[in-house]
Amino acid sequence: MLRYYYRMIATFTDFGVPGPYLGQMHAVLHREAPGVPVVDIFTDLPAFNIRAAAYLLPAYSQYLPENNVCLCVVDPGVGTARRATVVQCDGRWYVGPDNGLFSILMRRASAAQAFIIDWRPGQLSSSFHGRDLFAPIAATLARSDPPPGKEIEPVQLLTPDWPQDLAEIVYLDHFGNAITGLRASGISTASIFEVAGKLCGFRRIFGEVEHGMLFWYENSNGLVEIALAEGYAVRELGLEVGTAIRFSVKAPPGTPLHPRQAIRG
Amino acid sequence: MLRYYYRMIATFTDFGVPGPYLGQMHAVLHREAPGVPVVDIFTDLPAFNIRAAAYLLPAYSQYLPENNVCLCVVDPGVGTARRATVVQCDGRWYVGPDNGLFSILMRRASAAQAFIIDWRPGQLSSSFHGRDLFAPIAATLARSDPPPGKEIEPVQLLTPDWPQDLAEIVYLDHFGNAITGLRASGISTASIFEVAGKLCGFRRIFGEVEHGMLFWYENSNGLVEIALAEGYAVRELGLEVGTAIRFSVKAPPGTPLHPRQAIRG
Amino acid sequence: MLRYYYRMIATFTDFGVPGPYLGQMHAVLHREAPGVPVVDIFTDLPAFNIRAAAYLLPAYSQYLPENNVCLCVVDPGVGTARRATVVQCDGRWYVGPDNGLFSILMRRASAAQAFIIDWRPGQLSSSFHGRDLFAPIAATLARSDPPPGKEIEPVQLLTPDWPQDLAEIVYLDHFGNAITGLRASGISTASIFEVAGKLCGFRRIFGEVEHGMLFWYENSNGLVEIALAEGYAVRELGLEVGTAIRFSVKAPPGTPLHPRQAIRG
Repeated sequence: MLRYYYRMIATFTDFGVPGPYLGQMHAVLHREAPGVPVVDIFTDLPAFNIRAAAYLLPAYSQYLPENNVCLCVVDPGVGTARRATVVQCDGRWYVGPDNGLFSILMRRASAAQAFIIDWRPGQLSSSFHGRDLFAPIAATLARSDPPPGKEIEPVQLLTPDWPQDLAEIVYLDHFGNAITGLRASGISTASIFEVAGKLCGFRRIFGEVEHGMLFWYENSNGLVEIALAEGYAVRELGLEVGTAIRFSVKAPPGTPLHPRQAIRG
Repeated sequence: MLRYYYRMIATFTDFGVPGPYLGQMHAVLHREAPGVPVVDIFTDLPAFNIRAAAYLLPAYSQYLPENNVCLCVVDPGVGTARRATVVQCDGRWYVGPDNGLFSILMRRASAAQAFIIDWRPGQLSSSFHGRDLFAPIAATLARSDPPPGKEIEPVQLLTPDWPQDLAEIVYLDHFGNAITGLRASGISTASIFEVAGKLCGFRRIFGEVEHGMLFWYENSNGLVEIALAEGYAVRELGLEVGTAIRFSVKAPPGTPLHPRQAIRG
Repeated sequence: MLRYYYRMIATFTDFGVPGPYLGQMHAVLHREAPGVPVVDIFTDLPAFNIRAAAYLLPAYSQYLPENNVCLCVVDPGVGTARRATVVQCDGRWYVGPDNGLFSILMRRASAAQAFIIDWRPGQLSSSFHGRDLFAPIAATLARSDPPPGKEIEPVQLLTPDWPQDLAEIVYLDHFGNAITGLRASGISTASIFEVAGKLCGFRRIFGEVEHGMLFWYENSNGLVEIALAEGYAVRELGLEVGTAIRFSVKAPPGTPLHPRQAIRG
């Protein structure tokens, strides 16, 4: 009984919170895996943007408990021939389309297994595999049953030739901050980035910055995030998903930035 | 014990996800029906639009498990003399105001029962019957207790004189698609619709369409849905809840549509 | 076992529903307090606005069951020296930063206890104490364990010198209504308020008002709320969080208002 409680299903989707998609998927999960809690980690991944999601996934699933099942649906190819897959990485399970979504996750994993799922439900719509196909598979794993398919070599999954870290904005948050696909752990805190023509240096916490200062920090999931003290960086700089972030050549590492200058450029 | 797990409460409301309304209703449900999962199918039904909700309800509750309790609150008449009702249709329970919300559902049901609820809570606000009145009734049903009222003939419920299917847009989704009140099952795939002055033909799946093509398809809940390949039909065509959709007289069934022509019209 | 069910965790945050913040906090709660339901009462409190949240909190937690744990995170000072606190008021628990968030709640409570939490998790990010610090504390209380800190005199908590009731708008809801920080219980229904240059008198329910009429009513949580019949008061009057509401001097209590006049001013 207790084993159930330590299983959890976490959803990562671009469905949006409003609308009938997330709720119908939850209904299937509760029906097929009674007693297993379901949490929504991302409901607003950039729509149809597999690459942005691929860089967010390892960062935002690392804090989930072992055996957690991540139900990941960013699926522009729904209804086409793309395959369904289950991946186990470092003790967590991931379910979703074989479209590259798990490629960064697997590349970084110390141990990984991959499965192609050939099971199909009795009724399969052409446009909502999150509900009809992936949710029942996630529920199967959450019940501690094996993946309903055959194991393959991880290299047989679709693995686009994407960089180790992505020097782009991959998500714009509610507080007006911009999350990038760069892991902060490998970056010197002396680094100065250029984004949308402005420079930004490192600050450890929000409390350290002056009003109106543009800065970068290591966010709570280990990624480089761009923020404007007491402001909305996204709005003020016109940032979008896909906006490039570059190590600045104008300002060599160590250059002290005047806060105002940083913003007004 | 297991019986609890197979009961589920699904909410259908126009409350919006943000704000304190949905959460307070959830709190009452968890308090009054401990252990019963609650899922939100629609949190953003068009505000105060009973008719649009009436056509969405049968389509979006058909996939819920038997004995599921649907808690439905689109209630512009809250605080007035409108009655509270419980309906059982094809094995599922529905709770909500007697304002026509269940009229399409009941008309299509193969078996239906109706109850007028005379039970009232100790404390009843004048503006939030979702929390104070309907949620406790839904919890009662989820605990397998009978409806706290008296059975009536279904014909005694308010049943507006609405058509069998509604040739209008009833919901705009997050992906920019427009859901109509037409069931696709009765419509030939050779049919061409006209919406906002543009023509659209049928495609089975998104993968079959060319970039920029306007088309209709049977969505995963069986309704006719209007979409623009790799675009936002809602924004591009200025669609709104209530926009009419017509069988085209200009283009007889079978006419092949040039994708570009379909959009630019 | 049953004791668990009667515990519940209710969140009050400014995180926004979209984005990865609320979900990660839920994951920690489910992991640390298995079987305890979690409901989100407010996910969109005005961002970083401690004062607005302080007046909403007592109104919106009063309907929660006894022993309920309220996890409250409006925390502009995250990462700075501000303390973590647990408060017990009238049988309910509250967890959050010591920044004034609980000051109105405690001032009105008939019985209150306060605790400073010195426990810290093994891993503490600098920007997400909701997930790393406050959620584990809430889970501890939900498991019926004592607060992991030492009791202090309530007066030692940060208690800003704010008025008993706040004559300002503190929240704009999805239906276009504006919630104020004024408790309706102490206000005569003959009172006429002035907001954004317009006058508004009292109506008990929405059903009593004429189309287009601006009015105030006691909302379902006991606060004075400004609404426009069949319209969006917030949009039409340009209301914002912080907009003042005044007892009108122009119109003495009792003056009958012509509905149209009330809006057009």
